[in-house]
Amino acid sequence: MNVKEMEQAFRDYVRTILHYQETVALIDWDLHTGAPKKGRSQRAEVLGTMAEKAFEMMTSPRMKEFLDALSDPGVEIQLTPVTRKTLAYYKKEYERNHKIPADRYREFTVVTSKAGQVWEEAKEKDEFSLFQPYLQQVVDFQKEFLQYWGYKQHPYDTLLDHYEPDMTVEILDRVFGELREDLVRLLNEIQESPHKPRTDFIFQKFDKHGQEAFHYVVLKAMGYDFEAGRLDETIHPFATDLNPWDVRITTKYDEYDFRTSVFGTIHEGGHALYEQNISPNLAGTPLHKGTSMGIHESQSLFWENIVARNRHFWTYFYPHLKQYSPQQFEGVSPDEFYLGINVVQPSLIRIEADELTYALHVMVRYEIEKGLITDEIRVGDLPGIWNDLMNEYLGVRPPTDREGVLQDVHWSAGDFGYFPSYALGYIYSAQLKYAMDKDLPNFNDLLSEGDLHPIRRWLTDNVHQYGRLKKPAEILMDTTGEEINSFYLVDYLKKKYREVYKL
Amino acid sequence: MNVKEMEQAFRDYVRTILHYQETVALIDWDLHTGAPKKGRSQRAEVLGTMAEKAFEMMTSPRMKEFLDALSDPGVEIQLTPVTRKTLAYYKKEYERNHKIPADRYREFTVVTSKAGQVWEEAKEKDEFSLFQPYLQQVVDFQKEFLQYWGYKQHPYDTLLDHYEPDMTVEILDRVFGELREDLVRLLNEIQESPHKPRTDFIFQKFDKHGQEAFHYVVLKAMGYDFEAGRLDETIHPFATDLNPWDVRITTKYDEYDFRTSVFGTIHEGGHALYEQNISPNLAGTPLHKGTSMGIHESQSLFWENIVARNRHFWTYFYPHLKQYSPQQFEGVSPDEFYLGINVVQPSLIRIEADELTYALHVMVRYEIEKGLITDEIRVGDLPGIWNDLMNEYLGVRPPTDREGVLQDVHWSAGDFGYFPSYALGYIYSAQLKYAMDKDLPNFNDLLSEGDLHPIRRWLTDNVHQYGRLKKPAEILMDTTGEEINSFYLVDYLKKKYREVYKL
Repeated sequence: MNVKEMEQAFRDYVRTILHYQETVALIDWDLHTGAPKKGRSQRAEVLGTMAEKAFEMMTSPRMKEFLDALSDPGVEIQLTPVTRKTLAYYKKEYERNHKIPADRYREFTVVTSKAGQVWEEAKEKDEFSLFQPYLQQVVDFQKEFLQYWGYKQHPYDTLLDHYEPDMTVEILDRVFGELREDLVRLLNEIQESPHKPRTDFIFQKFDKHGQEAFHYVVLKAMGYDFEAGRLDETIHPFATDLNPWDVRITTKYDEYDFRTSVFGTIHEGGHALYEQNISPNLAGTPLHKGTSMGIHESQSLFWENIVARNRHFWTYFYPHLKQYSPQQFEGVSPDEFYLGINVVQPSLIRIEADELTYALHVMVRYEIEKGLITDEIRVGDLPGIWNDLMNEYLGVRPPTDREGVLQDVHWSAGDFGYFPSYALGYIYSAQLKYAMDKDLPNFNDLLSEGDLHPIRRWLTDNVHQYGRLKKPAEILMDTTGEEINSFYLVDYLKKKYREVYKL
Repeated sequence: MNVKEMEQAFRDYVRTILHYQETVALIDWDLHTGAPKKGRSQRAEVLGTMAEKAFEMMTSPRMKEFLDALSDPGVEIQLTPVTRKTLAYYKKEYERNHKIPADRYREFTVVTSKAGQVWEEAKEKDEFSLFQPYLQQVVDFQKEFLQYWGYKQHPYDTLLDHYEPDMTVEILDRVFGELREDLVRLLNEIQESPHKPRTDFIFQKFDKHGQEAFHYVVLKAMGYDFEAGRLDETIHPFATDLNPWDVRITTKYDEYDFRTSVFGTIHEGGHALYEQNISPNLAGTPLHKGTSMGIHESQSLFWENIVARNRHFWTYFYPHLKQYSPQQFEGVSPDEFYLGINVVQPSLIRIEADELTYALHVMVRYEIEKGLITDEIRVGDLPGIWNDLMNEYLGVRPPTDREGVLQDVHWSAGDFGYFPSYALGYIYSAQLKYAMDKDLPNFNDLLSEGDLHPIRRWLTDNVHQYGRLKKPAEILMDTTGEEINSFYLVDYLKKKYREVYKL
């Protein structure tokens, strides 16, 4: 085989892996939207077969042959840059997966599967002690795996890198530290404000078909391509890129709180726009994918918060929204509406948090994960530590573990290192906005006119199109001229909330 | 490996094949219901990968090892009956597929793919000559394949056997011959009748959501389990058994002819009931599947015609239907409604034919397929032969080939031997009804009361539950005590249509 043939064989092999992954994504979408109840457990087995097959192909001797042969310097130099990046991607995946002995990995999947079930039960019964031994095993596995994987500075860096390439504890400690101080100060100011936005109109009945009709208006204005996607209902909203031309959104409806689906849909729409606007020339490779969890989250949060919680956005869209539930908004001025949807209230549950307090929830988890990995925190002490941190950061103390340490599924699945991405998304999005302002000084006017295309185009030009070609830090540097910096998020939040709360 | 282990390994291997097939079915369902337009061609590639993989596993050296090892008489005797039947199933498939040289099969798929495209174009342009050379190639392939496959009496028997195990030209010539004579005579009588049922109310607007709501009422009454299925909209209606607990129905809506979706949904519902009621003990094997195309069609037609075109069915359901489109049926008596939905009219298009003329359309195709395979008919003569046969059987002559020989997709795909199943379904369904009458002499009363469960249960007891455990002829013999016999269909049609047309 000459180099061209070898390259082609590798690309074909990769395409088949992607076919399996597309299958997994479709099955998963179906399971979460309309798959009939009784057929689901059988379908889950099929999903397992397909996911295993994709994993097998990524870790197979055949893959190893490709990686070795194509990494030969004399060969690699002849590959197209896309193939080289694809090669690098699979090399990293291969090494990550191969360093763990197969029997230990199998054992880990058994433990997490069991831990997931027990977590559900523990949460329902509000009994952390049930979950504790399983969480201990999951944490022990993380530490064991870290020995195989190795690390440079801090063991947690390696976990972070899985979700946010090149992110480190050193960076996060600094950035989160600064951010936390500023957020807590701002939050305290707000809580002392005598001004409390009116929110009564939020909790009135808004027919879900009306909400859905509004979503179509907004998503189209955002530039979401319905010929390359669709919107469905689900319990836990998500966006999923089945393939470059099929990026679906799901949303959850609450007929007595339209915010759930309105902001949820825009959030998922932001994820979907990212995937819909990656360069089509990367299709058929793993590079056609958002570059990290944090950058992905920066896109969803940009649309959800920076665009859709902006006063000017509603100048245009509030009249549209009203059409679908006229009674509800009768006598609610645009100003009242804007203030109402931006109410800040420290709460116990992360996924219900507002844009100001959300990052604080994440930091609680970050500190705990770090501590567990370095043995500075013991699993048995978690409920107390959790509650203390919540009190310290947010000024609220969970009355139950169900509303505290047991609220998230992530740890039972062994997803350590994931949580920080959420907060990174907030920070990145504000940095991107600062850079965007230079190119689109008329940002607010665009919103007022409902003309969102220049915004979407800017994000495509600066972020979307590259897919995995650029790492998160490169995106940031190329776009904003600097490294991660929480100043912009704080500045954005201060300006906004000092106005909302008349501070 | 001892026998038990070998049996288990084989069953696991089979289960994985079924996982691939389930994946194919889900992708196919999605492509035909809501998959976004732009993502479809990529998805079709994924479907191809999965279908190929299932095919590979069925024809692999590993499969051959299983078949050989388990067929050893000393081994086979130790297998469970279900494994033995599963083994027999894959043996037949393996042999069928292995007799054709791989390069010839590949060439055939290329030809049919091209033929499909050209057929579409030829149909659109109404130019048979465009399609002719491709159809010639497809026919030549059929004849070549028959040389590899071999045959006992008539070469067409082998093609029939793919869809209707053990069916032969000898049987069909006799049965179709008798049936055709009787149908043509009855049709002539009807056409001379001065009575023409009123049909004006059919073509009025019936909102599709109203139609859909009615389908839920009927499907539930039929016993269709919505927790193990769902109903969606599509262009070409179908039922699909993704797995034993997920059997989906799709339907097509025509807001100016409710018959399309009402009878279409009940038809697909009949297919779905079959798959939903196969013994769950056959799950995880290819035996959990309707036993033949003909028996499957007997189930859909039983519900569509024998149940839902029965006067008594509408005693109960007409008031329900009316609710969803009250204006349309104002002043339309139950009797007028019944006569209207049973109007008989020879027409050019098979898929629009009524229950009396449908089988005649099939027979035109049967005679032509037989003739093409035995060289008694030349491809170039098809348009004329088609039109002559239509005129002879149905008394209508297609003015264009688009409405004649070019109307069906089947031949372009190489699906020779499939068409007879449709007519067999009619014949079987009437035979089953005759047998059912002995156990449920109150059949009409049950319909009038909307109590369809005893009917569904009878079909489950006699047909559904066996899946592929019984061959079509066994189902018929065990249930009716005789072989295929067109008398019952003719008897049913005569009694019914002599009343409808007051002959």
